Amino acid sequence: MANPLLIPEIRTMLVEGDDAGLKEVMTELHPASTAEFAEGLLVEETWKLLEHADVHRQAEVFAFFPPEKQVALVAGVGREKMSELLEAMSHDDRVDLLQLLDDDLVDTLLPLVARADREDIRRLLSYPDDSAGAVMTTDYATLPPDITVQEAIHRVRQQAPQKETIYYIYVVDDQRHLVGFVSLRDLIVAKPSAVIRDIMQEEVVTVRVDQDQEEVARELAKFDFIAVPVVDNENRILGIITHDDVLDVLEEEATEDAFHMAAVGTMEENYLDARFATVWRKRSLWLSCLFVAQLFTFTVMAQYEHAIASIIALSLFLPLCISTGGNSGSQAATLITRAMALEQVSPGEWRRVFRHELLMGAVLGITLGAIGFLRAALTPESMLRTADGDILQSWLLGVVIGSSVALICLWGTLVGSMLPLAFKRLGFDPGYASTPFVATIVDVTGIAIYFSIASWCLM
Amino acid sequence: MANPLLIPEIRTMLVEGDDAGLKEVMTELHPASTAEFAEGLLVEETWKLLEHADVHRQAEVFAFFPPEKQVALVAGVGREKMSELLEAMSHDDRVDLLQLLDDDLVDTLLPLVARADREDIRRLLSYPDDSAGAVMTTDYATLPPDITVQEAIHRVRQQAPQKETIYYIYVVDDQRHLVGFVSLRDLIVAKPSAVIRDIMQEEVVTVRVDQDQEEVARELAKFDFIAVPVVDNENRILGIITHDDVLDVLEEEATEDAFHMAAVGTMEENYLDARFATVWRKRSLWLSCLFVAQLFTFTVMAQYEHAIASIIALSLFLPLCISTGGNSGSQAATLITRAMALEQVSPGEWRRVFRHELLMGAVLGITLGAIGFLRAALTPESMLRTADGDILQSWLLGVVIGSSVALICLWGTLVGSMLPLAFKRLGFDPGYASTPFVATIVDVTGIAIYFSIASWCLM
Repeated sequence: MANPLLIPEIRTMLVEGDDAGLKEVMTELHPASTAEFAEGLLVEETWKLLEHADVHRQAEVFAFFPPEKQVALVAGVGREKMSELLEAMSHDDRVDLLQLLDDDLVDTLLPLVARADREDIRRLLSYPDDSAGAVMTTDYATLPPDITVQEAIHRVRQQAPQKETIYYIYVVDDQRHLVGFVSLRDLIVAKPSAVIRDIMQEEVVTVRVDQDQEEVARELAKFDFIAVPVVDNENRILGIITHDDVLDVLEEEATEDAFHMAAVGTMEENYLDARFATVWRKRSLWLSCLFVAQLFTFTVMAQYEHAIASIIALSLFLPLCISTGGNSGSQAATLITRAMALEQVSPGEWRRVFRHELLMGAVLGITLGAIGFLRAALTPESMLRTADGDILQSWLLGVVIGSSVALICLWGTLVGSMLPLAFKRLGFDPGYASTPFVATIVDVTGIAIYFSIASWCLM
Repeated sequence: MANPLLIPEIRTMLVEGDDAGLKEVMTELHPASTAEFAEGLLVEETWKLLEHADVHRQAEVFAFFPPEKQVALVAGVGREKMSELLEAMSHDDRVDLLQLLDDDLVDTLLPLVARADREDIRRLLSYPDDSAGAVMTTDYATLPPDITVQEAIHRVRQQAPQKETIYYIYVVDDQRHLVGFVSLRDLIVAKPSAVIRDIMQEEVVTVRVDQDQEEVARELAKFDFIAVPVVDNENRILGIITHDDVLDVLEEEATEDAFHMAAVGTMEENYLDARFATVWRKRSLWLSCLFVAQLFTFTVMAQYEHAIASIIALSLFLPLCISTGGNSGSQAATLITRAMALEQVSPGEWRRVFRHELLMGAVLGITLGAIGFLRAALTPESMLRTADGDILQSWLLGVVIGSSVALICLWGTLVGSMLPLAFKRLGFDPGYASTPFVATIVDVTGIAIYFSIASWCLM
């Protein structure tokens, strides 16, 4: 969010041509802070501000702008200037930007970018979305194995300005095969005369370029690494993924999970900025599917038309009974989905989960069933009259409601816990097997349970 | 999860006394990998394996064991040995461990720990849960401002073995006031004769020791920092929070959010390992609350007893109509809750959100209402008979169902989008205002909407 206090101040500086002040904003603050302060500025004002630092600093600040602002800024500047900026940007950030631009615009920009950078961009753009290749950056530091620590520090110093990180350095042979790893900490602590080959770690944790980004993020998170190298089938290094990319990936996946769980579909855009028609299409698609599935409630209800017509009290308790299944089902589904995400449970353990939830569902069912029994047993006599003029016994109605609630709760818990495991086993995102999906299945089947028990006890 | 392939291999090494092999497992692999391989071993076997490296390496591997295994290992070893290990552990990891142990055990262990470490532990234990103080570690690297880069690198080299990170170094005066910051990258690139004061960054992003851990994690994530310093009211440095802690905090908060959203409450334990009674208490508490709230559906239904008794078709369509509100409400609630978590929307913007969702809810309602109209208009004549012997017109029933679905969908969308904003404004976690909570409110009110429309059109 833009900082409303600072915008007038920066505006004043821009109007008064306070170059010293603007330079301070650009160079003394962290690039993320500068970007935050500049968020409310117009495109032209932003470019004026950016020009008060060298192109490397400009690129750093630029990368912290939100995606929409980056796109707007590109439109407001000459191609010459933009190609310079692209050359200075971090290799993964610039690919992220180019993916947001129109293909035509990219085609006019790329020829102006230095050849090596252009080839790097083309290569990175070619990896499939959500793969390690799409997240990695190619500006990593490398060393050959047969030099001394002193020489190594000298080379790292020279590489430093162009590299995303110099804290993790990868040791490669002539064909760029990854043969080892040293951290800058290792280099600083080692004897200057030691040879890299002798101090490097040979067992390097790597990820494959075609691995899924979420898998990679969890791997990196497990090891507390600052970065992890990305390799091809022949163990040649292609790039690195850094700790800040992991945060972005995990955030993105958490949003996706939350959306799947509430039947929103996948939505990458900022909520209020996304196009209305796009949001409507995604939301209505899911809601319509659920609605059509819910039409089965009518079909099932129709089977029990006679019971419904003769005992009004059954309709009065219907919403209570079916909501129990939805709530217990979503609770179980969320617990299991989350436990799988944290790798506490795998589909292979379904028997253990089933036993656990069978017992849990039964105990929860008895708890809720007891409340249901009490409430139904207190139904006023006027509501107990049947269409035939008989009067139901209130304790009998209590038994029907209590046992229906208990059974539906147990059923909801079992469906809610087993579906995410089944989805995962079948290769779908378990998040889809969640709240509304489970609720819909349990609604339809819950109605059948309720009226079966009622017909059996009361008719 | 334990690696089933490696356990027999390590077991064989242990039985055969293959010290060279065990030493390789302990020293050549990343500590996280060693910990993973050892996960299936018994307590005694694990200690035997650990002994094949120095105490620093032991501490590193130990910290990667899951919490329950750490606690079991402490129980299986002498106090002498454990106090050595505590001294070698990273300052934040050991406090996390001590918080899991019985107070009596901690009291017998602490006197054996070196005095400086003991005081450090006591101080870290004193910070409230979920605060920056509880997450930070105190083994950070510092430098005075008035030395040269050459001297600084020499000092950093000496500090390296005891520090969590040496990539970010904090410049402090005699009273430990934070006066600046240099990265190891800056030091490596700078002229050896330069003075720290001249090359350090003076604008340092800090967090306060009493700030909430989630706020701190989001701050650190925004800046892509490896670490952020934690300071007191007078800008004295107390500790640092590192990038891997941020991942842990965000993961913990994501789990909490997911659980709130599905009415599970807060559960910190591993799902299958947690005590049954604890899980039951938490789950039944939430389900019972929702169940009691759902009892109001009966109260509302009772108001329309006459309509229900005379027109059976109304009961048949009831589950369909009320589920629409629950689904559209959870969808809206999830979107808004997530948008707030990502700072795309704040409670102050509720008018904008309201207008957006009013339009969206109306359009979604018309979409679903159209499907509802068609389905209801196709109801077979046998189900259209009223208790008085009249026959309803099927198109009129279609109008009742279609308009109820549309209105309930709109209503669900508005409730679902406004409640999380209201909760946030009132200082509650907006996650609580989610799926089951919204569904319950919308169920009760949806019934009233449905029967009001039905009474008005049909009676």
